[in-house]
Amino acid sequence: MKTLKERILAEGEYLGDGILKVDSFVNHQVDPKLMDEAGKEFSRRFKDVGATKILTAEISGIAPAVATGLHLGIPVVYARKRKPITMPDQVLLTLAPSHTKGRTVELIVSPEYLAGGERVLIIDDFLATGATIMGLVRLAEIAGAKLVGIGTLIEKTFERGRMELEKLGIPVLSLAPIVSMDENEIVFKE
Amino acid sequence: MKTLKERILAEGEYLGDGILKVDSFVNHQVDPKLMDEAGKEFSRRFKDVGATKILTAEISGIAPAVATGLHLGIPVVYARKRKPITMPDQVLLTLAPSHTKGRTVELIVSPEYLAGGERVLIIDDFLATGATIMGLVRLAEIAGAKLVGIGTLIEKTFERGRMELEKLGIPVLSLAPIVSMDENEIVFKE
Repeated sequence: MKTLKERILAEGEYLGDGILKVDSFVNHQVDPKLMDEAGKEFSRRFKDVGATKILTAEISGIAPAVATGLHLGIPVVYARKRKPITMPDQVLLTLAPSHTKGRTVELIVSPEYLAGGERVLIIDDFLATGATIMGLVRLAEIAGAKLVGIGTLIEKTFERGRMELEKLGIPVLSLAPIVSMDENEIVFKE
Repeated sequence: MKTLKERILAEGEYLGDGILKVDSFVNHQVDPKLMDEAGKEFSRRFKDVGATKILTAEISGIAPAVATGLHLGIPVVYARKRKPITMPDQVLLTLAPSHTKGRTVELIVSPEYLAGGERVLIIDDFLATGATIMGLVRLAEIAGAKLVGIGTLIEKTFERGRMELEKLGIPVLSLAPIVSMDENEIVFKE
C-alpha cells in the first residue's frame, strides 16, 4: 500500500535491535484516515474468503482491525492481555512471547465471542516473528473456528514469521513488507 | 444516540457493583458500524470546537476515538498504561484510580504527540467517576494544550463524574447517559 509505505519512509524511525518506531501514525498516535485506507485495502483483498469475524490483539491491532471490520461489515474481537472483571471465569487463553516487551504475554478471549463455525480473519499491526499472530491462530483453533486469512500493516520479512504462518495454507498479506532496515534506509519488498 | 441505547438495552448486562458489561459491542467484541455511527455523531456535535487532536486512553477508548478522528479529519493519541520501548525517557505521566480494575493506573503520553497549542477533544468509552478522563485532562494541561470538549459513549450519571468535568467550562457529551440500572432495568436520561 503506497500511502503506508510513504508514511513509513517519512516518519518511521529505526531504533536498533530490529525495532521500527511508527508511533506517529500507528502505535501511539493513530492516523484514522490511513487506518481507514488500510481497512479498505484489507477488505478488498480478503473480500472472497467469507470471514465472519476479525480477531486481533490489544492494543495496536485495534485500529486497523476495526477499520477492516467496518469495510467488511463484520465484528471485531480483540484478545485481552489481562482478564477484565466482565469476562467469565472460563476463557480461551494462550501464551505468546513478546519480542518488544521482552516477556511472555497472555492472550485471552471470551468463548462468548469466538465460537465454532466462525470464519476468522486475523488483522494486526506488525508481522515480525509471528509469535503474537500464532497466539491468535491458537485461540481461533481452540475455539473451533476456521481461519481464513491473516493481514498485517507492516511485515519485517527478515524475522521470518511468515514461514510459520504459510504452513496454515491461508492467505497471508502485509501492506508494507520490509526486507531490510537500518539507521539510514528502510527497504520494502519489490 | 438511539442505536447505541437500543444496543445497550438489548445486550448490556448489569453485573452488580455498578458494572455494566457491554463486551459484545464495545469492550471486547467491537461493532465497527456502531463505532462509526458514534464517531459521526461526535464529529457532528463537536464540529465547531476547532479540535486539532483527539486524546483517549487505551484500550476501549481507541475504537470510538479513531472513528471520531476519521470524521473530523484529525489524529488520535491514546495514552498508554505502560511505557513502550519506543517512547522517549521524558514523558507526560499522571495517575488515575480505576474503579473497574481496583487499582491505580498510569496514563502516559509522549510529548512528541501532545504539545502546547493543540486543541484537544477527549473521547472515551465510559464516563463514570470521571477519574480516567480527569487523568486525560491533566495530561493535556501539563502538555500546555487547550481542552475543547469531552465525549463518551456511555455515562453512568449516578457516579457523578460529570460534576468535576463541567467545572472545566467545556462541552461534556455522552451518547447514552444512564441514570439508573439494576438486574432488571437500565434507565436512560430523558
